[in-house]
Amino acid sequence: MPDVELIAVGTELLLGQLLDTNTAFVAARLAENGIDVRATHAIGDNRERIAQAIRAALARCDGVVTTGGLGPTVDDLTKEAACDALGVGTELHRPSLAHMEAIFASFGREMRENNRKQAELPRGSRVLDNPRGTAPGFVAFGADGKFVACMPGPPHEMKPMLVEKLVPFLRERYDLHSAIYTRVIHTIALGESEIDHRIDDLFRTCENPKIAVLAHDFRADVKVMAKAESPEQAEEMIAPLQRDIEGRLDGYVFGTDAATPESTVLDLLHARGWTIALAESCTGGRIAAALTGVAGASQSFAGGVIAYDNAVKESLLAVDPAIVERHGAVSEAAALAMARGVRERLGTTVGFATTGIAGPGGGTPDKPVGLVWFALDRDGAEPRAWEYRFRGNRSEVQARAVTFALGVLWNQLRRPE
Amino acid sequence: MPDVELIAVGTELLLGQLLDTNTAFVAARLAENGIDVRATHAIGDNRERIAQAIRAALARCDGVVTTGGLGPTVDDLTKEAACDALGVGTELHRPSLAHMEAIFASFGREMRENNRKQAELPRGSRVLDNPRGTAPGFVAFGADGKFVACMPGPPHEMKPMLVEKLVPFLRERYDLHSAIYTRVIHTIALGESEIDHRIDDLFRTCENPKIAVLAHDFRADVKVMAKAESPEQAEEMIAPLQRDIEGRLDGYVFGTDAATPESTVLDLLHARGWTIALAESCTGGRIAAALTGVAGASQSFAGGVIAYDNAVKESLLAVDPAIVERHGAVSEAAALAMARGVRERLGTTVGFATTGIAGPGGGTPDKPVGLVWFALDRDGAEPRAWEYRFRGNRSEVQARAVTFALGVLWNQLRRPE
Repeated sequence: MPDVELIAVGTELLLGQLLDTNTAFVAARLAENGIDVRATHAIGDNRERIAQAIRAALARCDGVVTTGGLGPTVDDLTKEAACDALGVGTELHRPSLAHMEAIFASFGREMRENNRKQAELPRGSRVLDNPRGTAPGFVAFGADGKFVACMPGPPHEMKPMLVEKLVPFLRERYDLHSAIYTRVIHTIALGESEIDHRIDDLFRTCENPKIAVLAHDFRADVKVMAKAESPEQAEEMIAPLQRDIEGRLDGYVFGTDAATPESTVLDLLHARGWTIALAESCTGGRIAAALTGVAGASQSFAGGVIAYDNAVKESLLAVDPAIVERHGAVSEAAALAMARGVRERLGTTVGFATTGIAGPGGGTPDKPVGLVWFALDRDGAEPRAWEYRFRGNRSEVQARAVTFALGVLWNQLRRPE
Repeated sequence: MPDVELIAVGTELLLGQLLDTNTAFVAARLAENGIDVRATHAIGDNRERIAQAIRAALARCDGVVTTGGLGPTVDDLTKEAACDALGVGTELHRPSLAHMEAIFASFGREMRENNRKQAELPRGSRVLDNPRGTAPGFVAFGADGKFVACMPGPPHEMKPMLVEKLVPFLRERYDLHSAIYTRVIHTIALGESEIDHRIDDLFRTCENPKIAVLAHDFRADVKVMAKAESPEQAEEMIAPLQRDIEGRLDGYVFGTDAATPESTVLDLLHARGWTIALAESCTGGRIAAALTGVAGASQSFAGGVIAYDNAVKESLLAVDPAIVERHGAVSEAAALAMARGVRERLGTTVGFATTGIAGPGGGTPDKPVGLVWFALDRDGAEPRAWEYRFRGNRSEVQARAVTFALGVLWNQLRRPE
């Protein structure tokens, strides 16, 4: 198994002005492909220090992967430092020069000498094209066969270069046949400890594929990771385990991989030919925002009312003032009246409502901060309501109530009778 | 100026499973306090490698600051590695043991031997209390006077320990009198190049305080950073420059430091005793979500209608069907009718509306994806509408339209006549 170290270049990283997200991305892709990342580093825009860091890393492992410092300015010194560390000079790479000239011509701008410098690459290096920017990446080699791969810093240039160029190159160079393929099983409304309880034996016995759980606020993802030689082989390894896990978590799995709670809810509505309207109080438009974030939402989502003020509950949702007076705006009766009101006013199949206390003010001993009522009213079915007390500050209560709402909607819509 | 290197410990960092946000936070706080961060590293849970990394860093600078690896498990090896690197043993720190025992007692749980190990600290070290967790941090010293400061990995434990304990300790140790104080001036609807143009001479001439611009989608922040010996001295240095910058950017500065566009809009409404209602189409509840994210929003925000389906524009907002038929739902006339409709239906001082095409579908040559109309209707004033074509994908168009909307609202509310 080849091992590498990563070096992110840029003084702004040492000042804490920029959060380095490149390193974790590179590390994850290399690990998936069977390349061991031994350590990662960030170094400022200093030629000698970058060269020292590369030299020290090469003494410990097979290669170094750098990000950043390939631009046209005097502060961009990664290439020069890599040459210093490897003891090689540069040569003009004509295709990269032509690519840059074409980019500048397309903008109607003249190319300067400092851009031309970007086409000078370490002698004998393997070029990593950069269709999304001017600076090409490259893999340079030392006399001992160790390598230094350098990629630009902007993530939208670096990420495709890594995935499409560098990883395939390293897989071939080190004759790596297998990779790690991942299936993500999304659950909602199931606690991490309950998941652990239900799949504990799989945790302990599964090695390939192996499984991991990532939990976050009413949602938890079970990751099934198979080390395989092809996507087809991975699928064969993953499928039976996935079926087993989905069976054990039955009733809580809303989808896999790219599925989200909101896309799943809209898919269910669309499949049934149903439409939905929302009456949101404490969630303040966040459920609507989640649904309308999905392209094509308008096929099933008609609209909604943000009934923040009680007067709006009465005027737009036809909630009987006596209900609010008797039970309060945060109550089962109010939630049910809001759900029915919005369904009737908007003429949809389904009405869904939230009313609660997001805090920090407004709580009472009876109705503390975090208490939220949810109600679902469907044409021709018995209306239902749910109550939950969420922990956390205002934005946490609001966000958790949205996830809870989408979980309830998904759960009700998938088995409507 | 003392210099340090940072080491984040954890194998999950090398697998790209966890994004390290600690390092940038530590780097920023140290830089503000006049401590030079020369390099940062991430190392796996391997005692020998951590010790090697500490030793190598100490050979280059005055000290090392680590995060992570102080927990009770067998994988937590940072303290042992620090002792190896410095050549010191450990000793029991009784106050830390008592603190841990009290925590366990308060949970009604028995303390295990592996927790007791957390109270064993390098001999002669300075303890950094951890009121938010069990593992104390510490600063250990080598015979040459160099130091290794170790803090726990959980950010909610590490950040206060750094700010309240480690930074004051290092300031005293290195006799650092000055720090960098920052004022952030928030602008909206002003491009980065226009800002550059207006304050270019300040950029070039100001050294202390110095200035920087951070731009993101219709918003740009100008940071004024003063190196000073006290907050009072910093204020004296910053105030005249801030006034100068705010004058040059007049009409675009909505607030400073913690102010957000939504909090500023709500403050203006509250100050005038006005209320607002929203009619959102393409923004799908996102403006309401922004406003209701602010505690106390209910004082000025009455509610709104998400008029996604055209039928909702007519039924809830009383938009004349002839307007939609003649001009289309995405038009100045429809936006104005929505703003008036929601104001009248909800009985507020101000009505504000959005209607547009978020994409990816729904665009035409006349009305392309990204086109959004905004309208403001205030009781007793001439209604106004604005049109903008946003670039980007669906979620970018939606997010940019929200910022634009808040910018328009702020700009109109601050000078209502």
